[in-house]
Amino acid sequence: MTGLRITVWNEFRHERSNPAVGAIYPDGIHAALAPPLSEAGHAVRTATLDEPEHGLGGAVLDETDVLLWWGHQAHAEVQDAVVDRIQARVLAGMGLIPLHSAHFSKIFKRLMGTSCNLKWRVADERERLWVTAPGHPIAAGLPERIELEPEEMYGEHFDIPAPEELVFVSWFQGGEVFRSGCCFRRGAGRIFYFRPGHETYPTYHQPMIQRVIANAVRWAAPVPTAQPKHGRCDALERIG
Amino acid sequence: MTGLRITVWNEFRHERSNPAVGAIYPDGIHAALAPPLSEAGHAVRTATLDEPEHGLGGAVLDETDVLLWWGHQAHAEVQDAVVDRIQARVLAGMGLIPLHSAHFSKIFKRLMGTSCNLKWRVADERERLWVTAPGHPIAAGLPERIELEPEEMYGEHFDIPAPEELVFVSWFQGGEVFRSGCCFRRGAGRIFYFRPGHETYPTYHQPMIQRVIANAVRWAAPVPTAQPKHGRCDALERIG
Amino acid sequence: MTGLRITVWNEFRHERSNPAVGAIYPDGIHAALAPPLSEAGHAVRTATLDEPEHGLGGAVLDETDVLLWWGHQAHAEVQDAVVDRIQARVLAGMGLIPLHSAHFSKIFKRLMGTSCNLKWRVADERERLWVTAPGHPIAAGLPERIELEPEEMYGEHFDIPAPEELVFVSWFQGGEVFRSGCCFRRGAGRIFYFRPGHETYPTYHQPMIQRVIANAVRWAAPVPTAQPKHGRCDALERIG
Amino acid sequence: MTGLRITVWNEFRHERSNPAVGAIYPDGIHAALAPPLSEAGHAVRTATLDEPEHGLGGAVLDETDVLLWWGHQAHAEVQDAVVDRIQARVLAGMGLIPLHSAHFSKIFKRLMGTSCNLKWRVADERERLWVTAPGHPIAAGLPERIELEPEEMYGEHFDIPAPEELVFVSWFQGGEVFRSGCCFRRGAGRIFYFRPGHETYPTYHQPMIQRVIANAVRWAAPVPTAQPKHGRCDALERIG
Repeated sequence: MTGLRITVWNEFRHERSNPAVGAIYPDGIHAALAPPLSEAGHAVRTATLDEPEHGLGGAVLDETDVLLWWGHQAHAEVQDAVVDRIQARVLAGMGLIPLHSAHFSKIFKRLMGTSCNLKWRVADERERLWVTAPGHPIAAGLPERIELEPEEMYGEHFDIPAPEELVFVSWFQGGEVFRSGCCFRRGAGRIFYFRPGHETYPTYHQPMIQRVIANAVRWAAPVPTAQPKHGRCDALERIG
Repeated sequence: MTGLRITVWNEFRHERSNPAVGAIYPDGIHAALAPPLSEAGHAVRTATLDEPEHGLGGAVLDETDVLLWWGHQAHAEVQDAVVDRIQARVLAGMGLIPLHSAHFSKIFKRLMGTSCNLKWRVADERERLWVTAPGHPIAAGLPERIELEPEEMYGEHFDIPAPEELVFVSWFQGGEVFRSGCCFRRGAGRIFYFRPGHETYPTYHQPMIQRVIANAVRWAAPVPTAQPKHGRCDALERIG
Repeated sequence: MTGLRITVWNEFRHERSNPAVGAIYPDGIHAALAPPLSEAGHAVRTATLDEPEHGLGGAVLDETDVLLWWGHQAHAEVQDAVVDRIQARVLAGMGLIPLHSAHFSKIFKRLMGTSCNLKWRVADERERLWVTAPGHPIAAGLPERIELEPEEMYGEHFDIPAPEELVFVSWFQGGEVFRSGCCFRRGAGRIFYFRPGHETYPTYHQPMIQRVIANAVRWAAPVPTAQPKHGRCDALERIG
Repeated sequence: MTGLRITVWNEFRHERSNPAVGAIYPDGIHAALAPPLSEAGHAVRTATLDEPEHGLGGAVLDETDVLLWWGHQAHAEVQDAVVDRIQARVLAGMGLIPLHSAHFSKIFKRLMGTSCNLKWRVADERERLWVTAPGHPIAAGLPERIELEPEEMYGEHFDIPAPEELVFVSWFQGGEVFRSGCCFRRGAGRIFYFRPGHETYPTYHQPMIQRVIANAVRWAAPVPTAQPKHGRCDALERIG
């Protein structure tokens, strides 16, 4: 499953306002996420909040197979009309990979129907992602756990619908656990929420994290299915 | 699980504008749904679209353990502020039972995140609900199938997230199938979508259908759990 | 849901051979598990491995609504004929609550179809059970987490089918996580696997643990459903 | 995902004893299932009950990525030692596709933990498989339904654990429904049960059915994941 059309969307604010973040991601988180996917043979473009229509105008969404989404401080600035279009595209089959603080993005909350709230703490602590679904395509080629240090903590309760497949559960040094790799299906589209990636830590430069994201992109790729017919329909069998 | 506080909400338009419907439900669908629940020992009130705040103002929602919802032609008239409050109550633990054409209600679509679209046909045909989860509390006391004739047809594909528990699958005479009894959890609340109940048929007078709804009310009752703490939190263990 | 008929089954070997265990559970783990259930209004009996037919002969299983199971060093001594009968009773609706090292019991492995293997370590460490499903009946009345110290560690990967509902995830001081409260349905019966309870620690004297087990017993109680008819059957509609 | 190593296992008794079956599948059902998979680029071999070790001796299972299984009248003749080896291979990642009457095969019942019982009738009736999961890889390239006429009827209740993904639900002319395409994960392996294929009907010559099986083979292919370590392990963090 190479040759997918990937759009990496990033809020791209922290990197320009916080030198500590800019030092880690000088061209933005999107610029770190894109190259490994290009190298894997996909056609990757990026889009950011402050571009017109958030960089998702014209045919961009229609030409996107899988959309990655990183946002944090400016969720509210994303236009509802764009959220509507993303939702429609997911239901029609586009994959969506909300990353880290995108748990609070409009599009993720829209698709989940819940608050998507959680506990959090930035305290330079260790995270250990345990694979709870060996054999899952998103865990392909991984060891049985991934160590990250330091990372932000996200803790349960994470207010999401029960994941349809649970690929990772995180352990945090400070005492919490978190469902960190969660698969959902909505309409014909697939969604993989992946927890790691606080902006002040170099998480997306980590090869194992890049591997998870590359696996998730393949898993979330659209499947060419007949769009089901909805609405009023005639009987297939004689009635009465 | 008796003594629950039930609110039966009904759009209550068809019954007043269509004599055929009024003949079946002279005081409204809500007036047919409420008595069996009262007789089961619950405290039941009703609410309808054209009352102020749709009959859900003041403390009504806060004092509701399980909310039944029947709507059809006027989904768009339900105020968004009321939908917001219902959603918040479900996430806090209130049960919700959307009936039949409520698949297209704002609150159900909000909680599902999908279009909730489906096929349909009104052709006086036979429906047969097969129990796919014997042993499930919502199937308590039922035979292995329930026959309804006539009913409206609803057919797949039904655009909902995969039900967490699938209690009924319907067979229709005209050639379709439908996932007719679907359990979901959102936040601390439970949702049971139940298909039957087209307004031109006397479905809610059927004892087996009343039994399913009574079972569902008990299943969806709130559980007194600690509301989880969300937001920033301190470490439980020493870090570093 | 009081007045259930509960059978608490215990291997009852460690308590008699290891003084450290005998000091904690002088009359056996079963004797610690039974009283809180009796006090909750259930009819509780106990059964142990070294009784004839493991204490499950005659009508005991037929008269059991929910069976608790604790075993560890002598799984292999449980007769296959007894395992067959327990499995048949679960499929017919009896609840089953395998505790702790019962992950390796014949009956649990039989019902899961997997190895049920895991990581473990006895190192006097802290366990913290986080509620991942607030609003679930098994979490009724609980705080958002339960602390246990010391306990044995069980770590992922736990080789079970994906739980149908995941109520608890454990954090361990030594760095692991574990899916500690797992709901399954098999036939008309419900199964709740609950992790805590190493024999050298007084876990079953802990009120919060007793609360979980009492909740699980109610959740797993049989539901009086029509047993579905299987085998050859006639058509309900005319064919051809 | 081409170039998989597929083994098509068939009981191969009906074809030799019943001329009506032999007329449809002169070289056996396996000989009908194999060519479309070979043409798709896989390395396909076949194996049958009456071969030594049922054709699964030596390294055959170790060199199989996905195993298809058709059996009916001679389930009891399959040696338990072979079933043990198949189960171990599935838990290690091999895909398994039990077809039609293989619902009662030893290996499927072993992996499910339930009776796998159902209703059935051979009455030359119409079956219509509805896609309930558009966007699922097993539904790739399919229309919204597949029509089969005639076929055997299988009806609910089907005594299996709730499928982790439900891809097809069948409608039968005589009045029943059935969960016909069911995904399960056990250990690192994936299982897809697919209903159609009674031996007296030419179902496996149907291109859409062949398409489903080809899709399922790709979906069930092993994923190269680290086999998790089980058993006693040391702490990753300092305790105490």
